Amino acid sequence: MQGRPTVRELVQVAIVVPNIEQAVEYWSRLLGVEKPRIIETEEWEKTGMEYRGSPSRARAKLAFFRLSNITIELIEPIGEPSTWSEFLRRHGPGIHHIAINVDNIGDAVKYFTEELGAEVEQRGRFTGGGYVYVDAGKTLGARIELLYHEK
Amino acid sequence: MQGRPTVRELVQVAIVVPNIEQAVEYWSRLLGVEKPRIIETEEWEKTGMEYRGSPSRARAKLAFFRLSNITIELIEPIGEPSTWSEFLRRHGPGIHHIAINVDNIGDAVKYFTEELGAEVEQRGRFTGGGYVYVDAGKTLGARIELLYHEK
Repeated sequence: MQGRPTVRELVQVAIVVPNIEQAVEYWSRLLGVEKPRIIETEEWEKTGMEYRGSPSRARAKLAFFRLSNITIELIEPIGEPSTWSEFLRRHGPGIHHIAINVDNIGDAVKYFTEELGAEVEQRGRFTGGGYVYVDAGKTLGARIELLYHEK
Repeated sequence: MQGRPTVRELVQVAIVVPNIEQAVEYWSRLLGVEKPRIIETEEWEKTGMEYRGSPSRARAKLAFFRLSNITIELIEPIGEPSTWSEFLRRHGPGIHHIAINVDNIGDAVKYFTEELGAEVEQRGRFTGGGYVYVDAGKTLGARIELLYHEK
């Protein structure tokens, strides 16, 4: 099908945790690296975040560990509703999604929803790009983050 | 601490699904690759599998997609009890673990249990090596597979 994104690699594995300071401490020890900076997602006026089709002011704290082949992202939800807070409430800490880069976010969302039966769960923008989480649990068995970057 | 494993990369991301034939079909379409062979874990006499400290004859169907930087593993549980069947029962399809290679499995298990508060959930052998799943949910936020290979 036309519009299928080209997926050669996974760029991130993301883990939702209840306490990011503690998780950063333990991951840094395991990896033998300096603690990365913990950042917060931007305010709603910049992200335009939508959860299940409705605007949400929920945010998250984030930290990134860049390994040689992939980045581990830690996420602590702030406020509700978001896919992060829902995941933590339902499952506890765990691996929330894997991320791929896509060139054309419109085509990629169309492919995932029409060809893979995925549901758009959350979307938002960040400085330089944006993301859409698609829940493809019924076909791929996982939630995928479609990441795009402004050209 | 001595015995800390050297972690430079993640080697696998593993997804538990209820129907591996279907998941293989959808992943193959998304990735634009031939469908990989679906294999079964070996019989208990070869794996010596233990789940939470007791022998278990549960098995799994497996399929592997080798991307440019990491391998995606699909797992369908066969029988009970196993970490795979428990995960599927409690959470539904989802990302079960991330895997790292370790040189010394004894040291690695000791590090994860003593320094990271992890619990040994399941272990087993396969031709050429073996694995231990450690649940480090309370510290790292995730289940980690420690993979080792015979020298």
